[in-house]
Amino acid sequence: FFFKQKTAYEIYQCDWSSDVCSSDLLCRQRFHAVYARTMMLSSRLPLIQAPMVGSLSPLTIAVCQAGGLGSLACAALTPAQLREQIALIRAETSAPFNVNFFCHTPPAPDEEVDAKWLELLGPYYKEVGLDLSAAQKGPGRAPFDDAMCEVVEDLRPAVISFHFGLPEERLLARARDTGAMILSSATTVEEARWLESRGVDAVIAQGAEAGGHRGMFLTSDIDAQPGLFALLPQIVDAVRVPVIAAGAIADGRGIAAAFALGASAVQLGTAYLMTPQAGRSGIHRAALRSARDDMTRLTNLYTGRPARGLLTRFMRVLGPMNDTAPGFPLATGAVDPLRFAYEKAGHGDFSILWAGEAAAMAREEDAGLLTQRLWKEAQECASGLTCGRV
Amino acid sequence: FFFKQKTAYEIYQCDWSSDVCSSDLLCRQRFHAVYARTMMLSSRLPLIQAPMVGSLSPLTIAVCQAGGLGSLACAALTPAQLREQIALIRAETSAPFNVNFFCHTPPAPDEEVDAKWLELLGPYYKEVGLDLSAAQKGPGRAPFDDAMCEVVEDLRPAVISFHFGLPEERLLARARDTGAMILSSATTVEEARWLESRGVDAVIAQGAEAGGHRGMFLTSDIDAQPGLFALLPQIVDAVRVPVIAAGAIADGRGIAAAFALGASAVQLGTAYLMTPQAGRSGIHRAALRSARDDMTRLTNLYTGRPARGLLTRFMRVLGPMNDTAPGFPLATGAVDPLRFAYEKAGHGDFSILWAGEAAAMAREEDAGLLTQRLWKEAQECASGLTCGRV
Repeated sequence: FFFKQKTAYEIYQCDWSSDVCSSDLLCRQRFHAVYARTMMLSSRLPLIQAPMVGSLSPLTIAVCQAGGLGSLACAALTPAQLREQIALIRAETSAPFNVNFFCHTPPAPDEEVDAKWLELLGPYYKEVGLDLSAAQKGPGRAPFDDAMCEVVEDLRPAVISFHFGLPEERLLARARDTGAMILSSATTVEEARWLESRGVDAVIAQGAEAGGHRGMFLTSDIDAQPGLFALLPQIVDAVRVPVIAAGAIADGRGIAAAFALGASAVQLGTAYLMTPQAGRSGIHRAALRSARDDMTRLTNLYTGRPARGLLTRFMRVLGPMNDTAPGFPLATGAVDPLRFAYEKAGHGDFSILWAGEAAAMAREEDAGLLTQRLWKEAQECASGLTCGRV
Repeated sequence: FFFKQKTAYEIYQCDWSSDVCSSDLLCRQRFHAVYARTMMLSSRLPLIQAPMVGSLSPLTIAVCQAGGLGSLACAALTPAQLREQIALIRAETSAPFNVNFFCHTPPAPDEEVDAKWLELLGPYYKEVGLDLSAAQKGPGRAPFDDAMCEVVEDLRPAVISFHFGLPEERLLARARDTGAMILSSATTVEEARWLESRGVDAVIAQGAEAGGHRGMFLTSDIDAQPGLFALLPQIVDAVRVPVIAAGAIADGRGIAAAFALGASAVQLGTAYLMTPQAGRSGIHRAALRSARDDMTRLTNLYTGRPARGLLTRFMRVLGPMNDTAPGFPLATGAVDPLRFAYEKAGHGDFSILWAGEAAAMAREEDAGLLTQRLWKEAQECASGLTCGRV
């Protein structure tokens, strides 16, 4: 029974070459040796809460305490804030957790590009009574760097995941030397192979359905990213490392389906957005409550890089994709003041409402209870496929 | 065991309200009463070969003989050709089969639109040594009409499926009165509800991954169509009729995953493209052999309506989406001569290479053996999820 948990020690004792289940690569993938040294099978559920900027330690803690792998998005944190968040997590749980970093190369600021962007946003600044001088410059999201690497070397989280590829080899080697399990997202088979060749311990197969930023790094063509149904089995067949499925997995059915397609673990973000621990704004929560399956779009308007979120007025009038937006993450500087001004007035016109295509399936429930329920439902769903009653 | 087959009579005898499997709506969906009068459970596999223009009775026959539901695409057939194809099918098998019709409203021809389209294609006509007068006018795909309805009334296929919504109520009623099971595709929850309210017997949930034409009819925004992982459970939860999953299902893993997500049956197209019975051109087969997961795009260039296919030169230089293309199906007239001229010269530059995002998973195998293998693998995959060995 694949949901039964074994200790790392028990896993080590098994002779998988002779004791594997007859049913092919599902089992091969699931018990890949790398697991023996990870959290996945040491009495933990193979269920990862996706790192989401805007959620902090409370969500990580709740998921960890419930047996899942809690994550912490670090792209909008300073090194000092990261230390503080990790201290908060460790005060509440000794369970392993995941820290997530972006590893983009910020573009050189370009005054001409910034000016055109601001010109495009001008009418909305005016509408909400905001002066153009309120626009900020400089990055809104920082990549993994020496300062962050020092925190990681010092505090040694069990798992480190990267988005937008991997950091430069020097930093990657330092992160790996901490003993952490290294994960990164692939949006195509080619990216999965690239990540495997650079030594990641597992690949996150991010389907087009996923909310937030595409992890894509070998292409910028958003039409190249397959949906999870196509992407997952093709990545599973292409790499030897375990594959973690991400994208529109929102309940037990989705978890069981991902395992059927060859996943060794699943990563869920949107499913956690309505939990009290996710710390979402009233505007974000209200939008999620009325979300429909056909209401998300990929947009580069908020940060300069394509990310999936619920449709907003901003996306309707200027996008969802717009070539005038400065490169990631420089678009953010001019959008943030606008966003906050509208939110202050009670409007979500320019709000960031990241969500995957299963947004309408997010439930208002404690994150810990949700984690346990998701796993229980996944077990029931898998049993139901072969329930013998019919 | 959900793969075990019962006769329609056995299904009728069951008291589902007391005998349902404990594991929720998977079972509820699977044994919806409508099934008792369909082919699905009368000793047939709940596996449908997707209708594909370009494939004829040999594919239908092979799938039917193997226990699946074979389909016949009728959009490019005349009524006389449909009669002939059905006669060929019935000469080889007494199994139920599905005939598929488009039900679009062809746009009024517009000389200005046609002229602009031809102007855009002009350089390629010149390149291949073709005169512009070779361009045809008039539709390349016919909708379901009185003449086709008469064939259906006369020959009474067990299943009729529609694409692009449903025909006008008068024709739909006549089709329904033949006793046929009526299916149609939904690309959003809204479309699924619309179809259910008009009395379809089952809804095909077509994920964004699917090859060929989007079934979309309440929107023309291709970004509104979710991937199958998101779409399928949301449609299953929204309607009471059985849901058939379509889009990137290419092997037993995908079939098991679709059932986990709540499907009552699956529909596979791309998986059959490389079978000898599919009748694909050497150019199409060669493209499929070198296909990758990131190589398909939605394009309106070939027919005027978005459809997923492998990237071609045509799509690279003028699309994949282009506003100049005349409305469906009028774009076809000017493209077909170009396409055939290039193919005659051995080039697939303008070829129609419909394929879903799982194109790389299509295998060269007899369609009947493939049908049986798909089902066997699905059973193994489902068993593997709860194999008890770990």
